[in-house]
Amino acid sequence: MQDSLITSLYQIGVIQFGEFQLKSGQTSSLYINLRKIISYPDLLRTISKRMWDTLKDHRFDVVCGVPYTALPIATCLSLEHNIPMVMRRKEKKDYGTKQSVEGVFTPGQQCLVIEDVITTGGSIIETAEELEKSGLNISHVIALIDREQGGKQNLEKKYTVDTVLSLSTILQSLLQADFVKPAEKTIIEQYLLERSAQ
Amino acid sequence: MQDSLITSLYQIGVIQFGEFQLKSGQTSSLYINLRKIISYPDLLRTISKRMWDTLKDHRFDVVCGVPYTALPIATCLSLEHNIPMVMRRKEKKDYGTKQSVEGVFTPGQQCLVIEDVITTGGSIIETAEELEKSGLNISHVIALIDREQGGKQNLEKKYTVDTVLSLSTILQSLLQADFVKPAEKTIIEQYLLERSAQ
Repeated sequence: MQDSLITSLYQIGVIQFGEFQLKSGQTSSLYINLRKIISYPDLLRTISKRMWDTLKDHRFDVVCGVPYTALPIATCLSLEHNIPMVMRRKEKKDYGTKQSVEGVFTPGQQCLVIEDVITTGGSIIETAEELEKSGLNISHVIALIDREQGGKQNLEKKYTVDTVLSLSTILQSLLQADFVKPAEKTIIEQYLLERSAQ
Repeated sequence: MQDSLITSLYQIGVIQFGEFQLKSGQTSSLYINLRKIISYPDLLRTISKRMWDTLKDHRFDVVCGVPYTALPIATCLSLEHNIPMVMRRKEKKDYGTKQSVEGVFTPGQQCLVIEDVITTGGSIIETAEELEKSGLNISHVIALIDREQGGKQNLEKKYTVDTVLSLSTILQSLLQADFVKPAEKTIIEQYLLERSAQ
C-alpha cells in the first residue's frame, strides 16, 4: 500500500526529475525540493505529525528548525505540541540586542534540531554548533527525508538521528505507483542502478 | 480593562527598557523585541488570531511573512486558516532551482504581507517588491505593532495597512497597569513626553 505522505510529496512536485546541480557541485537526475511544502498547510501538519510519531518518547525542551524550509515545520510542531521554539539567525544583526539564536531558553536545555532533508548534514551541523555555542544541548536531530548520501552517518557520530523517510523508500514506492509517469520510472530505475553500482 | 495581549507581551519581555541603537542609527529608551514570541506557541496563536480578526473580510490567496520574526506568525496564520504560504529568501541560492520567492503560487494572486512591527516600513517594502517582481499582487499589509515612526504612513502610499496595536496604545495601557515597575513607568512617561514634543 502506498504511503499517502509519499503520494502527496510526489503530487505537489517535491521530487523533481531532470538535471540538477547539487550544493556539493555534483549533478543529479533527481532533486528533492521540499520548499513547496510551505504552501500546503495540511501537508505541513502531516509532516509535523509524522516527525512527532517518529520521535516517540524522546524528550526535549525547545525545537529549532534549520533555515529555511524546516522553519515552518518547526513552527508547526511547536504549535501542535506546545513546545517553545528558538531560531538561528543566518546573519547577525548589528543593532538592537545582538544574538545569533533568537527566542527564550536557558543554557542546559535540550534542543531538538529539525531539518527537511539530510544531504551532507552540513547545514544541520552548522545550526547545531551555533545552538551549542549559545548553551543549548543537542542530542537529537529529526529530518523528514534522508537523501542517503552519507549525511545521516556523518551526523550520527555526534547525535541521535531520526528520519521519517529515506530516498530509497520514496523511490521504491514511486516505482510501484500507477500515477508516476513511465519516463520518470525510467529515471528512478537508472538512479537506483547507478547508486547500487557505487 | 487591560488588553491581555499587551499584558502577555510585557510579561515575556517584548518591551525592553534601557538604551538601544535602532536600525536607523537613532537611540531609543524603548526597544520592541518581538523575536521572543517564537518561544510562546500560545501567544503566537493569539497574535495570529488578533491579526485575523483585524483583517476582517479582506481576501487574499497566499500569505508571506517578512523574515525573520514574522515567519512563525505567517506559518501560524497559514495553518490555522488553511491559506498557502510563500517565503522570500533573503539570500538567493546558487544551486538547485533558483528562486527568490519560495512556495507555490500563480502570478496575479493576492498576497498578504505579514510583519511583526512597523518601524520605517523598509523591510516590508523590500519584501513586497520582491513578491511583486515574482508576479504576486500586494494590496494589503498587516503588522502586530505600529511603532509610530512614520512607517505606516509611508506604506499607506502604496498599500492598505492594518495594525493590531500601536506603540502609544501599548504604552498608555502599561501606564495604567499595576504590574509595571515605577522606574519603567517613568521611562514610558519621558518617552511619551519627548514624542509629543517632536
